[in-house]
Amino acid sequence: MTLLRRMFDFTASPLGPAQASSVPVVANDGFSALVLARLSTVAQKLAPRAGSPSTRSGRQPLGHIALVGAGPGARDLLTLRAVQRIQAADVVFYDRLVEPEIVALAGPRTKCVFVGKHVGAHSWPQERINAAIVSAARRGLRVVRLKSGDPGIFGRAGEELAAARQENIDVEIVPGVTSASAAAAELGQSLTERGIADTLILTTGMSRAGAHLPDSARFAAPGTTTAFYMSVRQASRIRDALMARGMPADAPVNVAVEVTKPGQKLIHGTLGALDHLLAQSQVKGCAMILVTWPASASQTTVSASPVASEQQPAN
Amino acid sequence: MTLLRRMFDFTASPLGPAQASSVPVVANDGFSALVLARLSTVAQKLAPRAGSPSTRSGRQPLGHIALVGAGPGARDLLTLRAVQRIQAADVVFYDRLVEPEIVALAGPRTKCVFVGKHVGAHSWPQERINAAIVSAARRGLRVVRLKSGDPGIFGRAGEELAAARQENIDVEIVPGVTSASAAAAELGQSLTERGIADTLILTTGMSRAGAHLPDSARFAAPGTTTAFYMSVRQASRIRDALMARGMPADAPVNVAVEVTKPGQKLIHGTLGALDHLLAQSQVKGCAMILVTWPASASQTTVSASPVASEQQPAN
Repeated sequence: MTLLRRMFDFTASPLGPAQASSVPVVANDGFSALVLARLSTVAQKLAPRAGSPSTRSGRQPLGHIALVGAGPGARDLLTLRAVQRIQAADVVFYDRLVEPEIVALAGPRTKCVFVGKHVGAHSWPQERINAAIVSAARRGLRVVRLKSGDPGIFGRAGEELAAARQENIDVEIVPGVTSASAAAAELGQSLTERGIADTLILTTGMSRAGAHLPDSARFAAPGTTTAFYMSVRQASRIRDALMARGMPADAPVNVAVEVTKPGQKLIHGTLGALDHLLAQSQVKGCAMILVTWPASASQTTVSASPVASEQQPAN
Repeated sequence: MTLLRRMFDFTASPLGPAQASSVPVVANDGFSALVLARLSTVAQKLAPRAGSPSTRSGRQPLGHIALVGAGPGARDLLTLRAVQRIQAADVVFYDRLVEPEIVALAGPRTKCVFVGKHVGAHSWPQERINAAIVSAARRGLRVVRLKSGDPGIFGRAGEELAAARQENIDVEIVPGVTSASAAAAELGQSLTERGIADTLILTTGMSRAGAHLPDSARFAAPGTTTAFYMSVRQASRIRDALMARGMPADAPVNVAVEVTKPGQKLIHGTLGALDHLLAQSQVKGCAMILVTWPASASQTTVSASPVASEQQPAN
């Protein structure tokens, strides 16, 4: 009956003392508020542990590291597996892009460590994060490294995987919903479209030293959608690069800001007016530029061979 | 107390009579089996309905269509929002790529309609699916169109969105984990890597009529990872195209088959031996080819401007 009571005890805070003061439980959707309140108590009792600690030559048992995709922002866009890993964790390392209501899912005895940027403070260098997660796992702890979106897409997972493997620590990736998928969902659009955009390019606003145009625009072409992650500060250079590649100034562009988070903004306009739009909307924070360059009529003839039909129910 | 009893009644089948005979409840993970058993009864009682039926000029209330991403396969890679939409649905249309244990989450009064290919049977043409979801919504039902992966990535969401909007029916997309993210997670790799692959290309095995090389390989270049969805039947043409673009025969290639599903296979090899590998492994079913073409040394110099640091905690 203890479990039964806990499942219906909505007054009990799921927050441990370390975070209770700083991380509010935001319930912006009735569904998650109620169902997650159950999950947060039930899962801890019932969920099998991920990567049960193994012993190495009779020494201290090794822990486990999970690089967990937190999705784009909204708590109910977490996967069930992500919720389970967070709730079973001994320690959670999270950064500034992960919403407080997601961190708040951690159990009452979980230590939550902020490794991102506060206003006026510096983020942890990657090497320090690597060392911290490995050190915690070596002490036998179940470590969750919470990453916005999907850990495998611009999440620097490779460096953390390598650090864990160097110490023979069991490490897994829990995939998440990447921001481009969430942005398209909020825009009510598909990222690919038969005969219009058969390829999706995910890139960032990054450019190489000395490059005249952002390298990130180098694949944009008829028949593609390009999602430029974290690219608002590079917007005018991306616009120039796309126009230099032949995209017309009146091509439609969407900018998705803080997708599925409380500060979400969706901005629609034309490529030529991109700068103006961003200035007008005072876009700050995490934003993505989405551009679909439709295939020209001559390029839309798709092979009628049986192979083409393989794509139809795809994904 | 009814609710309490239902939450702990694991003997009660969540299946309605329409599907109970054909859709087994597969519980391959202790976590989901228990937690989802709760969700499946609790969410129906407590979750607010998505898109509560609206009335249009006093006529029959209109329903709601949700294009829901079912993720790559494993039930615990569903998002919480997807679970809620499935459980609140009056009717669920699903195809052959969605696992039975996901369809089984639907409530006891939910009608589940299979629109995919059975052995020896034809799948529904897209137009028939469009008509069916619109027709159900016009009768005031909450319709879920369950799609493997993310609806916006090779999911033909655009056609269903257009059909719904033409009839003024409220339609939403619930984003999901796309197969490339899940494949990388299972492989224990990142899809992007600073200085190695700064761009991710998602495409299919599709090629245009008369094209000598698959168009899908046209963006592969140093500094990219390309994920070829549903591409196994085109594997030899993709290999030829990549090698014609300058990729060496000894470049590592991964093939991920039925990712996170019971039949999952992960195959590692070299580009030159791709054909041989696939034949040897007798790959059938839904598979993805993943190729990372590392940036050459001269291309890895990333701008040291402040803009570059914007990417670091990205996603």
